[in-house]
Amino acid sequence: MNVDQYMQELGEKARVASRFIARADSSAKNLALHKMAQALSDNRAQLKAANLKDIDNAINKGLSAPMVDRLRIDDSTIDKMVTSLEQVASLADPVGSIDDMRYLDSGIQLGKMRVPLGVIGIIYESRPNVTIEAASLCLKSGNATILRGGSEAIHSNNAIAKCIAIALEQAQLPADVVQVVTTTDRAAVGKLITMTESVDIIIPRGGKGLIERISQDAKVPVIKHLDGICHVYIDDQADIQKAIDISINAKTRRYGVCNAMETLLVHADIAAQVLPELCAQFTEKEVELRGCELARAVVPSMLEATEKDWSTEYLAGILSIKIVADLTAAIEHINRYSSAHTDAIVTENYAKSRIFLREVDSSSVMVNASTGFADGFEYGLGAEIGISTDKIHVRGPVGLEGLTSQKFIVLGDGEVRR
Amino acid sequence: MNVDQYMQELGEKARVASRFIARADSSAKNLALHKMAQALSDNRAQLKAANLKDIDNAINKGLSAPMVDRLRIDDSTIDKMVTSLEQVASLADPVGSIDDMRYLDSGIQLGKMRVPLGVIGIIYESRPNVTIEAASLCLKSGNATILRGGSEAIHSNNAIAKCIAIALEQAQLPADVVQVVTTTDRAAVGKLITMTESVDIIIPRGGKGLIERISQDAKVPVIKHLDGICHVYIDDQADIQKAIDISINAKTRRYGVCNAMETLLVHADIAAQVLPELCAQFTEKEVELRGCELARAVVPSMLEATEKDWSTEYLAGILSIKIVADLTAAIEHINRYSSAHTDAIVTENYAKSRIFLREVDSSSVMVNASTGFADGFEYGLGAEIGISTDKIHVRGPVGLEGLTSQKFIVLGDGEVRR
Repeated sequence: MNVDQYMQELGEKARVASRFIARADSSAKNLALHKMAQALSDNRAQLKAANLKDIDNAINKGLSAPMVDRLRIDDSTIDKMVTSLEQVASLADPVGSIDDMRYLDSGIQLGKMRVPLGVIGIIYESRPNVTIEAASLCLKSGNATILRGGSEAIHSNNAIAKCIAIALEQAQLPADVVQVVTTTDRAAVGKLITMTESVDIIIPRGGKGLIERISQDAKVPVIKHLDGICHVYIDDQADIQKAIDISINAKTRRYGVCNAMETLLVHADIAAQVLPELCAQFTEKEVELRGCELARAVVPSMLEATEKDWSTEYLAGILSIKIVADLTAAIEHINRYSSAHTDAIVTENYAKSRIFLREVDSSSVMVNASTGFADGFEYGLGAEIGISTDKIHVRGPVGLEGLTSQKFIVLGDGEVRR
Repeated sequence: MNVDQYMQELGEKARVASRFIARADSSAKNLALHKMAQALSDNRAQLKAANLKDIDNAINKGLSAPMVDRLRIDDSTIDKMVTSLEQVASLADPVGSIDDMRYLDSGIQLGKMRVPLGVIGIIYESRPNVTIEAASLCLKSGNATILRGGSEAIHSNNAIAKCIAIALEQAQLPADVVQVVTTTDRAAVGKLITMTESVDIIIPRGGKGLIERISQDAKVPVIKHLDGICHVYIDDQADIQKAIDISINAKTRRYGVCNAMETLLVHADIAAQVLPELCAQFTEKEVELRGCELARAVVPSMLEATEKDWSTEYLAGILSIKIVADLTAAIEHINRYSSAHTDAIVTENYAKSRIFLREVDSSSVMVNASTGFADGFEYGLGAEIGISTDKIHVRGPVGLEGLTSQKFIVLGDGEVRR
């Protein structure tokens, strides 16, 4: 098979299908989502059998246990996919919603109508449930999708694709609305990210390496969600209990998530009051602490933090701790080392909270709340396809709206421009 | 001079300045804009002298009269720049404005705060007043700017840059907030559009060739505004007088603008009623008409339109006319040949107006209004830096908001995530 030509055709079919799905009724889209849920539920045996092939291959290839685990589809994974499909079906349809409608001096009435982006390419690794998440969000937002999963999940993804195809047919939507790339050839990705004629945006989901590689080579715009080096800054005017609760939650709720705190900053004047108790709690939870010199003077049991620690996303039970002289130093540290994902201040001071909110340049900036809240579900978006660390188009958790654009609409009564 | 290194340094200085201007008070930014206006007004003689060098060079190089004309700075051009600066100063500051603030079940309060993009690179041709327009809009929206004008306007642009520098100093803002590239070396553009570390977005202003070249090679995201192949569709249920008024205005208000109509579509059932009178008016205004076979059957004096006419932006007193069978055929023609800039329907039918608004995939879609309204000033944006024909980030006329992004802000009272 000529991969270039195969992808080219996929793109052209997606472009045609995108025009159809862009104008599809909400009810047709929701029906397709419900039918997908049903098809997954009805085809449990086939899904698990296909998944077993991927699992066997993964074990034979010597993939690590956590990697194999992320691949696995069992009844609970299928139940979760079914639930997520029903959730997406229950969300309000963003397409066609009109904002800011108003009359202008010339007599025309101007507003903005939300419209789909067109064709979305999703490139992802391992977890096959992304196939369902991505397909459902793109469908609901009126977009056609080309899905390219990891080669290690190819049998699972193809089995899920069959369920999607059944559902689209039952809902009388074109099959090409959701297309799954069936080749594992890497050239398919290279082609997908340069098809500016037929693809409107690329969303890569996976490790930093994947995302950087794609951003480097893409000609199609990319919504990036890079790493999460998140900070909590405990101000000298912090409420001690809130500082402890938030810090513990931000670090230990889950380690492997991008909104977990990786570095704790503490104002010098409050360090002696807050760090001993906080560090005791971290140690009890077996979090490894790496501190700057000043922090180690307060809690000598900490390991020594090196320059590299400040720019490391541990995704593990490790925390770096730095004492800073004041708010300005904290903001400077954050704007230098943060990945612009999520950063929080703990303070009872009004002026400092305003300065932090305004001057920290991250996709989520918080006062007296855990960084763990940075999430599409917690933000009420209903679902998320990723968390954008970009500033262009969409920033922070990306839900249905992030997969749409707005066009201007003008209603007149024969007005002409002078 | 090593151009790569020169641009690299410009980028790094812009990045540093962007942090400063992002947090600058509205009053400081407005002061700088007023001081720019004053500096331009105070330095009329110097501006005109510098401009004369460009004009002489342009004439010696044999540039066409309209090209030379676009280069020219006289008192009226200076007055217009002064007025536009004062207008931008009078606009509301978008930075820091907060939308959608609301309490969520978890107790946190969530909103979106508008923030600058960071560093904006503007690449433009000929007209030196773009230097002021771009600098003022980027400054007001809290961004640092790197401006790269055409080599034919280099003396004028450098003279304007001096006025900007005087104003920034008087307003106590860093000089690097607005930097004008002083080399005419083309390699400077190639470097600018790939400096992803220091430039957040590129806005090219100029001909289609320039914009396509830049989009092709850029690594930094680009806000494109390509050509305007705009349509007016006269439905069989149109009010004849409105159809004539809108068509005449959309074509003849000005020829060289991107929101001018280039193709008129007419429902077959109304063609005999509307075309003779309309074509007579066009002919009186010396507009050359090129029609499809059916149109020429109604008005035989038309020239013959070829396939190429449907995808040509004339920017001149030429109009192509096509008879279509129905609304569906009109929408299909538009979605195929339109540049997705601005398209209008003339109809008194409710259902058809809704279908047209929803199904035409252009940055502005209009009912019973002239395409001439597609403009940042007419839309009440106060100013515009271009009209985006992209769907990503911003679509249609781009004002101050289009030069910003939104970050999530969370206000809590010690909340942690379960």
